[in-house]
Amino acid sequence: MRLSQFHLHTSKETPAEAEIISHKLMLKAGMIRKLAAGLYTWSPLGLRVLRKVERAVREEMDASGAVELLMPTIQPQGLWEETGRWEKFGGQLLKIKDRKEAGYCYGPTAEEVITDFARQELSSYKQLPVNFYNIQTKFRDEIRPRFGVMRAREFLMKDAYSFHVDDESLAAEYQNMYDTYGRIFTRLGLKFRAVAADTGAIGGSASHEFQVLADSGEDAIFFSTGSDYAANVELAEAVAPGPRAAAAEALRKVDTPTQKTCEDVAALMGIDLQRTVKSVAVMGVDADGNARFVLALVRGDHVVNEIKLSKLAGLAEYRLATEAEIDAHLGSEPGFLGPVLVGGAKSATGNPKQAIGIVADRSVAAMADFVVGANEAGYHLAGVNWGRDLAEPDVVADIRNVVEGDPSPDGRGTLAIARGIEVGHVFALGRKYSEAMKLTVLDANGKAVMPAMGCYGIGVSRIVAAAIEQNFDANGIVWPEAMAPWQAVVCVINPKNDAAVTAAADALYRELNAAGVETALDDRGLRPGAMFADIELIGIPHRIVVSERGLAAGTFEYRHRRASEAENIDHAGVFARFGK
Amino acid sequence: MRLSQFHLHTSKETPAEAEIISHKLMLKAGMIRKLAAGLYTWSPLGLRVLRKVERAVREEMDASGAVELLMPTIQPQGLWEETGRWEKFGGQLLKIKDRKEAGYCYGPTAEEVITDFARQELSSYKQLPVNFYNIQTKFRDEIRPRFGVMRAREFLMKDAYSFHVDDESLAAEYQNMYDTYGRIFTRLGLKFRAVAADTGAIGGSASHEFQVLADSGEDAIFFSTGSDYAANVELAEAVAPGPRAAAAEALRKVDTPTQKTCEDVAALMGIDLQRTVKSVAVMGVDADGNARFVLALVRGDHVVNEIKLSKLAGLAEYRLATEAEIDAHLGSEPGFLGPVLVGGAKSATGNPKQAIGIVADRSVAAMADFVVGANEAGYHLAGVNWGRDLAEPDVVADIRNVVEGDPSPDGRGTLAIARGIEVGHVFALGRKYSEAMKLTVLDANGKAVMPAMGCYGIGVSRIVAAAIEQNFDANGIVWPEAMAPWQAVVCVINPKNDAAVTAAADALYRELNAAGVETALDDRGLRPGAMFADIELIGIPHRIVVSERGLAAGTFEYRHRRASEAENIDHAGVFARFGK
Repeated sequence: MRLSQFHLHTSKETPAEAEIISHKLMLKAGMIRKLAAGLYTWSPLGLRVLRKVERAVREEMDASGAVELLMPTIQPQGLWEETGRWEKFGGQLLKIKDRKEAGYCYGPTAEEVITDFARQELSSYKQLPVNFYNIQTKFRDEIRPRFGVMRAREFLMKDAYSFHVDDESLAAEYQNMYDTYGRIFTRLGLKFRAVAADTGAIGGSASHEFQVLADSGEDAIFFSTGSDYAANVELAEAVAPGPRAAAAEALRKVDTPTQKTCEDVAALMGIDLQRTVKSVAVMGVDADGNARFVLALVRGDHVVNEIKLSKLAGLAEYRLATEAEIDAHLGSEPGFLGPVLVGGAKSATGNPKQAIGIVADRSVAAMADFVVGANEAGYHLAGVNWGRDLAEPDVVADIRNVVEGDPSPDGRGTLAIARGIEVGHVFALGRKYSEAMKLTVLDANGKAVMPAMGCYGIGVSRIVAAAIEQNFDANGIVWPEAMAPWQAVVCVINPKNDAAVTAAADALYRELNAAGVETALDDRGLRPGAMFADIELIGIPHRIVVSERGLAAGTFEYRHRRASEAENIDHAGVFARFGK
Repeated sequence: MRLSQFHLHTSKETPAEAEIISHKLMLKAGMIRKLAAGLYTWSPLGLRVLRKVERAVREEMDASGAVELLMPTIQPQGLWEETGRWEKFGGQLLKIKDRKEAGYCYGPTAEEVITDFARQELSSYKQLPVNFYNIQTKFRDEIRPRFGVMRAREFLMKDAYSFHVDDESLAAEYQNMYDTYGRIFTRLGLKFRAVAADTGAIGGSASHEFQVLADSGEDAIFFSTGSDYAANVELAEAVAPGPRAAAAEALRKVDTPTQKTCEDVAALMGIDLQRTVKSVAVMGVDADGNARFVLALVRGDHVVNEIKLSKLAGLAEYRLATEAEIDAHLGSEPGFLGPVLVGGAKSATGNPKQAIGIVADRSVAAMADFVVGANEAGYHLAGVNWGRDLAEPDVVADIRNVVEGDPSPDGRGTLAIARGIEVGHVFALGRKYSEAMKLTVLDANGKAVMPAMGCYGIGVSRIVAAAIEQNFDANGIVWPEAMAPWQAVVCVINPKNDAAVTAAADALYRELNAAGVETALDDRGLRPGAMFADIELIGIPHRIVVSERGLAAGTFEYRHRRASEAENIDHAGVFARFGK
């Protein structure tokens, strides 16, 4: 490509609206242009990079045995009602009425559509396993679209869906996709980590996120310093600490007139925050489906993990208790709550202990002589001990976020934290969608069975931004080779004034392309400073300068984007850089 | 591709919902699967063909010098309001509200978006000319989606938009695109015709449609038997006939008690239909913007062309007159209308002649002794002559559809009719969008000028269906080589029972692919009849059968999809079929 024929349009200004480096550099390099909130046009330069990612994903998916198809972006409401997601999916689902007032959505994902396709296409175990994928535009109506294409509303996604006659086959394909994703991100030259994750709203039994590591990443990844264990904060397990110490202190009431947080209480008392316990009041349901007031206890220095808590019986759809509910059950105001139901504790039913459930985090269950709210404004209790001052917890479970330094759940090393950008996700879905949509096939015995499913997503457009977050310097983007718009650029110094230089540059440009090195020719006639600044900004890995002086010496000036200095090399030397 | 690993899913049944052959065959071959009205999933087989078309379009567009970008499918309402098309575009525009109640549409075309992109990106004549294209999903909310992907609501379109500092540059790019389109459709192996067309709602000064010729085509194309003139019915010019004959008959009133159509009147009178004149009453506006009653006259055997009529002064937005309006101006009921304002003719204003405009088609203006309605129920007038019985027409113009046998407007030959399917359209837009959206660039003198624009569309997904309409037989699809999912297929007879046959077929399959012949291996283990029926249905051009008997004789059974018989050829013979 001759850049004089290519619409390259860089900018020196740093755009005010961009908060993160990838968004800034994509705008400065002219890769994207904003159309509206969360909607971007990919310029010719940006599209070249996007297509590199798309091609890598497609080729590796094809090599994995998956088959590509293409589903519409617009999906009918009826299918989403079959799975209950028309209501459950939430505000990200862009709902649409057509001219006949029929309901549709712009697909944010395609489990419903592919399962509908499958129930028309699949009838026999002989057709399984099969993994259908497509690379298609998706839309999620983010409340606050930001960070450019990192969290755009319209984006390009590769989504794959596999169907299996049994769980063993699903497990094998899950592993196949896990391995394929590793190959994709490795091929793209990205530093990444596969992280165990929660299955969340998509449902299913197993899930891994693929995270591109970058300091700016929104997601916290916990990994072991002593093993290959890695999980996101939603899932990373906080293991039980050692056994509980014996009670050493007497129960006593402490004046805490204005201290409503564990931090303030610990500061007032001059004790370690780790000796305090935080009580979070929530409403769940009991075995009969009636509302149940529950206190969730975590150590003062810990944070409740909502996903872990919601996995406990009766808490699947819990919510925080209101002040009125807290007063009715504990006779206290927030800030002084605790699990010890003596003193001021009361209840509208007159039988508080039966109406309250106590869920203790593993670390709280192992504590002795701890501090909790007294259920009386202005007071806390100290020297509290399980069994002596209150009954053992109803449930002991892992309900907190892990923190750096926690022991790794596999017993090897401790947990450290890294920041990541989620670019892929694999799920072993099980039969959630085949059950909801009544997908069956005949097995080898002629019996109708519901296929197990897996689903596997990659954020194709997001990868472009994630790669920049991981690969940039003060001068611009530093593309991994596989994602660069061109591998190399031949720069012409004074192309209009020097026919010999122009001819030599043109010849080198053609020779490199003929040798399979995807090369651009910068024949725009810019002065060297402006030209080099552009080339560095847009991140081309190999730059080769053709000048009158170089020609006289029989050399070209070569510089790799990551090198600190240019060097003069001859014709053979240029080709040697590309292994030619 | 081994078909055992590919999700091929043909059907023997002819789907009831399909009205045209391409829709039937695409469903039977399993190329598409309906998701909802006008929404189709492209199966792996269908997608292979769609990608072939997409690639041909992309490569030829790239070769033409156009640069590819990617615009979002969702477009903001505000841009459409700038051009007035938010209201004008009509019901095909799928309007959407996001979670914040902001207005968007699913892009049916992208003039607004590209012009907005251009006003951010383009500032100097040095950046022009430039032609941006993208291949992106579009949506048009058809009232009656039908014919499968031929008139789907969601479809894949290549749309290109060029920007020019002057009209000469636009004209050059228009010709470049015209030539490029010719190369694209030629490369795809389609019989097509470029047809002069009306610029319609898109606006502009020149326009050609590219029509794939097929008997089932919805569009009528008129072409000259004696030159390369071709135009669609909207535009094809009906030239003026020879001079008017002298009046030979006296004006007389004819009893036509129940005869309200020209056909019935001509039959009753025993005269040629060509001697009658049809009067169509419409409402336009006069020079002052007031409503004006107009009679449009065409010969009894002709049909008014609404587009031609609407190009006349005062008739840009004409509508048919109501019965009350007809009565007020002519004192008659429909079926007996005519331009001769004697007898029963009256008007609410008492001054009918001033309130009525007469627009005569060129052929009507050349008539003598003709028959028209008498403006009195049950009567027509015969022997009518211009100048004698009524004033000369206010306007004489071409306001009718041409018919087969009309003289070609270029004076060479006569017009013949062909049926076509529109798959491409090029427009010289001029400055309609740059004016509406205030796009300017600085010219060589530093003066702000509004760029001229062109736009150029190709219906990528529609081409797949159009190609089938042109290429099928009783056994299925007959793909042109460039669009076939695979060029060749190697069929294995008894793959499970005969290791030698399987090995030979596998070797041939690999050799052909290595030689650059895109080849599938039908290793599904079907019986020959079912296998061959599938291969014919899905339209693979070259079929090579490997059997035990053939191996013993050192031959393969070869059959081209268009050949009536198979033949036995040796290994070298197979490769010779592909010029290898």
